[in-house]
Amino acid sequence: MEERSFPTRQGVLAAARRIDAWVTRTPLLPLEWQGRRLWAKAECLQQGGAFKLRGATNRLLQLTEEERGRGVVAFSSGNHARGVAIAARRLGIAATIVMPADAPAVKRAMTAAEGAHIIAYDRSTEDRIAIARRISEETGAIVVPSFDDIHIIDGQGTVAVEIAEQLGAEPPAVVVPCGGGGLSAGIALALPGSRVTPVEPGGWDDMARSLEQGEIVGIAPDAPPTRCDALQTPLVSPLTYGVLAERGARGLAVTEEEVADAMRFAFDRLRLVVEPGGAAALAAVLGGKVDAPEGTVVVLSGGNVDPELYASVIAGR
Amino acid sequence: MEERSFPTRQGVLAAARRIDAWVTRTPLLPLEWQGRRLWAKAECLQQGGAFKLRGATNRLLQLTEEERGRGVVAFSSGNHARGVAIAARRLGIAATIVMPADAPAVKRAMTAAEGAHIIAYDRSTEDRIAIARRISEETGAIVVPSFDDIHIIDGQGTVAVEIAEQLGAEPPAVVVPCGGGGLSAGIALALPGSRVTPVEPGGWDDMARSLEQGEIVGIAPDAPPTRCDALQTPLVSPLTYGVLAERGARGLAVTEEEVADAMRFAFDRLRLVVEPGGAAALAAVLGGKVDAPEGTVVVLSGGNVDPELYASVIAGR
Repeated sequence: MEERSFPTRQGVLAAARRIDAWVTRTPLLPLEWQGRRLWAKAECLQQGGAFKLRGATNRLLQLTEEERGRGVVAFSSGNHARGVAIAARRLGIAATIVMPADAPAVKRAMTAAEGAHIIAYDRSTEDRIAIARRISEETGAIVVPSFDDIHIIDGQGTVAVEIAEQLGAEPPAVVVPCGGGGLSAGIALALPGSRVTPVEPGGWDDMARSLEQGEIVGIAPDAPPTRCDALQTPLVSPLTYGVLAERGARGLAVTEEEVADAMRFAFDRLRLVVEPGGAAALAAVLGGKVDAPEGTVVVLSGGNVDPELYASVIAGR
Repeated sequence: MEERSFPTRQGVLAAARRIDAWVTRTPLLPLEWQGRRLWAKAECLQQGGAFKLRGATNRLLQLTEEERGRGVVAFSSGNHARGVAIAARRLGIAATIVMPADAPAVKRAMTAAEGAHIIAYDRSTEDRIAIARRISEETGAIVVPSFDDIHIIDGQGTVAVEIAEQLGAEPPAVVVPCGGGGLSAGIALALPGSRVTPVEPGGWDDMARSLEQGEIVGIAPDAPPTRCDALQTPLVSPLTYGVLAERGARGLAVTEEEVADAMRFAFDRLRLVVEPGGAAALAAVLGGKVDAPEGTVVVLSGGNVDPELYASVIAGR
C-alpha cells in the first residue's frame, strides 16, 4: 500500500484505472428541468445498488496477500456494507459487517446474500467503531472504514472521472448526497474546476455546518429521524472535510418531503429507483435550494430501499 | 423518402446514424442470473420512457418540409404516442394521437404534456386505424404507424446497433417484449447472428402462434385482460412477421404473475422502473421459459407505468 496522508486527484485517477473492470460505468442521463439540460449520474444502477462498490473495491484490491488472508471488517448502515461484501466475495476475502439493528431489511438481506458475516448493534446505545475495532483486534481483520480512508475516497471519486469522460468536459457544478463526505470529497478531487455541493437531510447537515463554521462540528444530540438512512453520519472526517473546506465548498440541507418529491420525480421522469438518501441532491435541485446552471450534474447515489417504503412514497402523493 | 418495400439491416444502420443526436444511448447493465452473466438493455431509460422514440424520430426526420407542414397522426396505447409527440415537438410538427380511453393515465398525461392533440377511442368498439385514416384524409396529416412501417422498424432496430457496439460483438441471444413486432424485427435485422425471441403476454401471443403456424393469425376474440398494455396488439404486420419468420424465430408467452415477478426483480436487483409490458422478456428468462446462455441480452423495453399499479406490484409479494 502506497504511503500518503491525503486523498489526491492522482489517487482518484489511479483508482479509476484500478477498479475499471470491477464496476459498472453508470449512465449519465439527460434531465430536463425548467428549460435547462442537466444530467443525472445514475449510481443507483451501480452493482450493489450504490456507489460504495467503487471505494470498497479500490481499498480491497490494495490489500496484500497476507492482509487478504486476515479478512476485513466494516461498519455501515447498508450500502458500504453491501459494497464491501461484494468486493470481498470476488476477491475471496472473509468479511464481517457491523450494521445497525434498524438498517433497511433489504440492505441487510443483500449484504448477507454476498456471504458476509453480519453483526447487529443498537445505533442509539452502542459505538460501531469500537465494535469493529474490537473485532479487528480479536481476529486480525483489516478495518475498512466507510469514508475516513484515502483509498475509499479515491475510489468514490471515480464517479466523477466517468462524468468528465461522458461529458467530454468538467461540468460547471455537481450536486451530491453527503453522509460522511467520501463521495463529495472524491468528486471534488476529480473535478478541480467544478463547484461541488454536498447535500444532507435536515438536522444531519453536519458537513454543511462544519464548512460554514470553518471547523468540524457534529450533529445535535436531538437530530430528528430521517428516512435517509445512508446519510445518517454523526460526524464527518478531517479527510473529507479538509478536501471540501480547501475548495471553499458550501453544503445545504433538504427536508423529508423534498426527498420524497425527488424520489417520485426519479420514478416519473427517469424511471430510476432511488433510495431516500440517494435522492437528496435531486431534492435540492428540484426544491430550488441550489443554483443549477445548464450542464449541472446531479448524483443519484443509491437505490437500496425497502419495497414497502418505496411503494408508500410512490403512491403517496 | 427512399423507396424500399422491406426493412433492412442497411436501413437500421442508416437509422442509427440519423437519430444518434436525438436519442439516449441506453445502458447495457450486467444481470447475474443462475451463475451466468446476462445483460439488460435498459430502454426504460430512453427519453419518453420507452424505445419508441427511436422509430418515431427516424420516421419524422425523413418527412419532407411539405409533409412536416401537414402534421402527423398516430394511434397508440401510449408509448408510441409519447415517442411521436416528443419527436414532433422537437421538429415543430403538429401531432394528433388516437389513444384508447383505457390507456394508463401516465401515458396519456405525458403525451399531452408534449403538446400533442389527443383523441380517445373505445378499444372494444372502435377501430383506431380507421379513426387515424379519417383524420389523415380530413387534415392531410401523415399517418405514423406504430410498427407496420419500414422506417419505424429500422428505427427500433437501432437498440441492437447499440447492443453490438456496447458488447463489441453480437450476443448469442436477445429476448424481447413483443407487441406488433417492430422492436423484435428491427433487432433481428441488426443482429444477423443472434437468436431473437419475441415474448408476449398469454392470450396475446399472436406473433408466437403466427411463427409456429407459418402464417399470420390474430388473437382470439376472448383474449384475457393483461396489464401489459404496451403489448396488446391484435394483429402483427407482414413486415414484422416476415423478418422474424425468415429468421426462423420462435416466440413464447408469459403469465401475468411472471410479469409481476420480473417487475419486482427489476426493482430489487436492477433499480429500474419497468412497466408490465417492458418486463415480459425478463419474465420469460426468470421463468425459465427460454434458453438464456451466457451473454444473452434481455430488453427492458419501457417504464411508463402508473404509480398506483407499480406500488401495488412492488409491495404485493
